[in-house]
Amino acid sequence: MMDSMLDRILRWAIARIVSHGNLTVVTPAGTRLTFGDGTGEPVTVRLTDRAAAIALLMDPDMRLGELYMDKRFVVEQGSIYAFVHLILREAQNQSHPLPARLIDRARAALRRFRLRNLPGRSKRNVAHHYDLDGRLYNLFLDADRQYSCAYFEYAGQSLEDAQVAKKRHIIAKLRIGPQHRVLDIGSGWGGLACSISDAGAAEVRGVTLSEEQLAFARERPKGGAEGRVHFDLIDYRSVQGRFDRIVSVGMFEHVGLAYYETFFRTAGRLLADDGVMLLHTIGCSAEPGFTTPWLDKYIFPGGYIPSLSEILPAIERAGLIVTDVEVLRLHYAETLKAWRERFLARWDDAKALYDERFCRMWEYYLAAAEVAFRCEDLVVFQIQLAKSNKTLPLTRDYIGAEHPPVAAKFTSVETPLGSAA
Amino acid sequence: MMDSMLDRILRWAIARIVSHGNLTVVTPAGTRLTFGDGTGEPVTVRLTDRAAAIALLMDPDMRLGELYMDKRFVVEQGSIYAFVHLILREAQNQSHPLPARLIDRARAALRRFRLRNLPGRSKRNVAHHYDLDGRLYNLFLDADRQYSCAYFEYAGQSLEDAQVAKKRHIIAKLRIGPQHRVLDIGSGWGGLACSISDAGAAEVRGVTLSEEQLAFARERPKGGAEGRVHFDLIDYRSVQGRFDRIVSVGMFEHVGLAYYETFFRTAGRLLADDGVMLLHTIGCSAEPGFTTPWLDKYIFPGGYIPSLSEILPAIERAGLIVTDVEVLRLHYAETLKAWRERFLARWDDAKALYDERFCRMWEYYLAAAEVAFRCEDLVVFQIQLAKSNKTLPLTRDYIGAEHPPVAAKFTSVETPLGSAA
Repeated sequence: MMDSMLDRILRWAIARIVSHGNLTVVTPAGTRLTFGDGTGEPVTVRLTDRAAAIALLMDPDMRLGELYMDKRFVVEQGSIYAFVHLILREAQNQSHPLPARLIDRARAALRRFRLRNLPGRSKRNVAHHYDLDGRLYNLFLDADRQYSCAYFEYAGQSLEDAQVAKKRHIIAKLRIGPQHRVLDIGSGWGGLACSISDAGAAEVRGVTLSEEQLAFARERPKGGAEGRVHFDLIDYRSVQGRFDRIVSVGMFEHVGLAYYETFFRTAGRLLADDGVMLLHTIGCSAEPGFTTPWLDKYIFPGGYIPSLSEILPAIERAGLIVTDVEVLRLHYAETLKAWRERFLARWDDAKALYDERFCRMWEYYLAAAEVAFRCEDLVVFQIQLAKSNKTLPLTRDYIGAEHPPVAAKFTSVETPLGSAA
Repeated sequence: MMDSMLDRILRWAIARIVSHGNLTVVTPAGTRLTFGDGTGEPVTVRLTDRAAAIALLMDPDMRLGELYMDKRFVVEQGSIYAFVHLILREAQNQSHPLPARLIDRARAALRRFRLRNLPGRSKRNVAHHYDLDGRLYNLFLDADRQYSCAYFEYAGQSLEDAQVAKKRHIIAKLRIGPQHRVLDIGSGWGGLACSISDAGAAEVRGVTLSEEQLAFARERPKGGAEGRVHFDLIDYRSVQGRFDRIVSVGMFEHVGLAYYETFFRTAGRLLADDGVMLLHTIGCSAEPGFTTPWLDKYIFPGGYIPSLSEILPAIERAGLIVTDVEVLRLHYAETLKAWRERFLARWDDAKALYDERFCRMWEYYLAAAEVAFRCEDLVVFQIQLAKSNKTLPLTRDYIGAEHPPVAAKFTSVETPLGSAA
């Protein structure tokens, strides 16, 4: 009796959001519910117990990932990516059922309250993610460990090449010259800082809050850049000095809404009067309020994904001038797809580092994030900033101009030089 | 006694904002006050009477233009442009004296209250400016009557070529195809609509509120576009139908802050699901609050110059996605410079159409606007919009790709074809 009611509720709730595709859901009672129009890759998932089914109905955004980690939501055919894609590609036009909506709202309120990234908490938040065993990142990132959205110059470009193109694109927007002192806020494993140095900057200073990343960055082969690239473990708010160029890639997501003005005022203080800054951040292309509760809890505590309408007032109040905004759509979906494929291919190596629950968590993270970029409102903003109307050229032609000649400089450090290929 | 006090106040007030250049001010008492460091083009101005001097001190933003129109502020050496440039290039870092600040504030409050562009008022506001004798515009615009910021592909490009480049740049961003129905909101004299048709669109509909502009647009030589371009006198809010492409150039300045959401919701209603829109508007690169009281009164009643932080929330609420933002800096300064030079060269023709006071008003408008783009916070935003993340290519390479081949299509109608040059 209870079982048949649960089956009916599951059928109703899933039918609301899945009208295309080929989905079978095996309920705790063993009933096989089918959804969609029978097109595309078949996906079969099973809920192992009644509590799992109820949890999923009440709070899907948080509980799907948890149930998948705990093997209480089992993918029997297809992949967790295919399931999330089926669910979300139509869900944008649907509202959640009432209980899920109420939980969403309470959670959003709580998050705004929590988003106070004082220096101590920032460091803990960073450690949660970026101080994981570096070998984990080797399993799925490119050779240069670029842990941010690549720039695919054409569909089907390899991840390695697209990450090289990303650095080249950013360097072109910064117009790096031989006299420039450059600050990289959130320098990660140091790949971009070294590429900026290779592109001819006088001096590059990278700052990070991750001790693991710092150690890696300091041991990188620096090539011709020896002595011109430095990395420090320091909060960006404590940096002193004056820089001709400032770049920040994939760090603004951790700044916290309450600190946007501090971020841009700090940048303004550090940037020379004829300086140029490039901010590269994940963003939301819709109204503010995009929340990813599972990602917040398991992957990026303290993170926040802003809409342009939340970033712009802080820039204007800080007295910086927006000179260009590129909105990278789908590039991060392609990046995450490549990461997930690489990660799945090295599953056993990952399991040797952590455990299977961790691996399932990581797979779910890469899959859910990809779907969010492909079907929901996630994009990447590249916001170029200056202090004067007169700093940059009249047109944007310089951005694409450097293509092939510079490319050779960014050859991956792991490319088998001299190999037959 | 009164004279010497007025001289002292003038000296104090002007010295606060002019420390460079070579400025002489002849006071009503005949005293020659000199300012600056003696570098650059000498500028000499004279205030004819004591009331003029006091008015200028109390409310410079409004009264300088009026006094110039009335010949109570006389330029004896140099130009009104050179004077405004001297005053404003340093004034950004200075605040006005107290009475001017209070007037500014009251005026800003009043403007926000007034910015309710109901359809009837919109039409009156448009008539104020755009229903002027069309021959006036022939005196200073390019042959195609492009009355908006040109796109200078390189410094020193001619106005004619830069206006052709502007249309080409916009058309590239719209990715016009032979199947496209296109809506031009604020179509002016019809130049852009005809160019879009020449670029291959299936159908172009231009809407305007100016009867003068409409009449001109309808009589344009349409070339191959005959029958595929239509112009209507209709408020954009009343347009019906569905369009693959929407473009709006130099019209958003007249929409009014209170109607931004209406504007973008209307565009969203009219735009196809795989549609692309390009908005080209004057904007403010600093915090909201840029006011030009003289321009509001004499040139553009009901106009408002928005900051990005004022535009973005309306776009997001309307469910449109920002896909690209180009910030054109200095292009409008160069455009206005070309317009002013052309206008001054045809001064006698302009005086034959109107009167000298009108000509002085027009000269002041072009000069003051140029200085605002060159030294203050004015820029032009080109905001590209879509409804889906999947509408546009991965990279922006397509925007610059069309250069030389398409250029030939846009040859100005007045180019002396077959001439020896």
